[in-house]
Amino acid sequence: MSVLRRPRVGHIEFLNCLPIYWGLMRSGTLADVDLTKAPPDVLNDKLVAGELDVAPISLVEFLRHADELLVLKDIAVTSDGPVLSVNLVHKRPLAELSGCRVALGSTSRTGVLLAQLLLAERYGVRPEYVRGEPDLDVLLADADAAVVIGDVALRAMYEGDHDGLTVTDLGSAWKDWTGLPMVFAVWAARRDYATANPGLVKDVHQAFLRSTALARTELDAVVESAVRWEPFDKAILARYYQALEFDLSDRKVAGLREFARRAAAAGAVPALPAGGPTFFADA
Amino acid sequence: MSVLRRPRVGHIEFLNCLPIYWGLMRSGTLADVDLTKAPPDVLNDKLVAGELDVAPISLVEFLRHADELLVLKDIAVTSDGPVLSVNLVHKRPLAELSGCRVALGSTSRTGVLLAQLLLAERYGVRPEYVRGEPDLDVLLADADAAVVIGDVALRAMYEGDHDGLTVTDLGSAWKDWTGLPMVFAVWAARRDYATANPGLVKDVHQAFLRSTALARTELDAVVESAVRWEPFDKAILARYYQALEFDLSDRKVAGLREFARRAAAAGAVPALPAGGPTFFADA
Repeated sequence: MSVLRRPRVGHIEFLNCLPIYWGLMRSGTLADVDLTKAPPDVLNDKLVAGELDVAPISLVEFLRHADELLVLKDIAVTSDGPVLSVNLVHKRPLAELSGCRVALGSTSRTGVLLAQLLLAERYGVRPEYVRGEPDLDVLLADADAAVVIGDVALRAMYEGDHDGLTVTDLGSAWKDWTGLPMVFAVWAARRDYATANPGLVKDVHQAFLRSTALARTELDAVVESAVRWEPFDKAILARYYQALEFDLSDRKVAGLREFARRAAAAGAVPALPAGGPTFFADA
Repeated sequence: MSVLRRPRVGHIEFLNCLPIYWGLMRSGTLADVDLTKAPPDVLNDKLVAGELDVAPISLVEFLRHADELLVLKDIAVTSDGPVLSVNLVHKRPLAELSGCRVALGSTSRTGVLLAQLLLAERYGVRPEYVRGEPDLDVLLADADAAVVIGDVALRAMYEGDHDGLTVTDLGSAWKDWTGLPMVFAVWAARRDYATANPGLVKDVHQAFLRSTALARTELDAVVESAVRWEPFDKAILARYYQALEFDLSDRKVAGLREFARRAAAAGAVPALPAGGPTFFADA
């Protein structure tokens, strides 16, 4: 008789992670995990609180809790240039936002810090930041710019610049600024859980790698399924899934470290220890 | 651009419905539904409240809301004899329970009514019924018998009669009493939803039929996966999935009608209209 329980695994219920859900389904992994589907901010909190064992976590939240977590290799939400769904939507040029209000959508952690670093360091502006529900109209009702992520952001990008609004893709902006890819989220296991259950974490990690590989080979089918339900046409979805990259290559890790360095210098997160992040060593 | 939303579909997160989850996963259906996994009593309430579009519903709750619902053909939770996981656990013979307390586990609807009908009509006893959390020790702490379902009930059956406790399988008891199979739950669509979205309901129905067929052909794999996580050995799981039947044949419908007739005669539910239940006609 088994005394194991299925690993409690998080899944981002945004369109960006649909290929991963597809892979988890098609690879049969869903039978072996206890999956919680939620927005990224909810998953961040649950992983940090120990209510999940393995989950995607916003890079910023990972950096704040790096001592409790181990990063899984070769899986992340990244882009090497445009990401399409992490956007700063603004009514006036970025360089003219000093003294203006910038509204930060509540579901975003890494996107909002990236926007703040970009505005402060690249454009030298110091707006007033306010938090708000992740609805573009609500955020912009009382602000000159808003940071949005996920399906809301993709919709803004899809509709393009209009009504005096400009959409700045923060993946592109980071690449222009640093020359590096941007890592928006990593997958991490709780260190205590991984120490107690290395075999289970290895299994989950392998399952995620199989899932992302499967999703890549079946991307047309993912798009075919998604287009039936999502308010985006096939061309947009295909472009979106080409922009998003789920690997964590050495260049991506370099991008992660560069973001960590800038974020720590700005006092937003603790410094990443030298040689960090610490990966789950799936020997 | 799509204006559809994925059908909101319920799934019973008990071991009994694991083959159906397996089938939904393996057939790729999970990408096309918005799945809520919950205990059956929660799903009953959500379907009746219109928070789900299609879901399994306890037979008793279906009978109480038959005018709002359409039954999907050829899918149900049934047994033609032992079911192993809908049990009356008792400290004294059933015929001697008059005046005793019988505790009814809160997750069960059809099982508890079946037990009440059986005790009243077959054994002629009138115990005092109390409701309680679905934990056998808690239920029996202050009662002479308890109705439990799902994994709790299967565990009681697996441990067998001991400590002066007898386990009566209510699927067997119904068969002995009436000669008919027992239908514990049916899958139903909300009538308003099915009228507005006949194509989607047809798709979901077909997906469920594909899923149960797939689960039947891959039952060994379902057991292999389940044995890793569930507190039951392979032999028990295999026996359990042989006892459970997910079809809704004419004989099963006859069993459903017989239960509906007896339940209505006892005043527990409204009478099923002649010729009922009303099925979703997937033309």
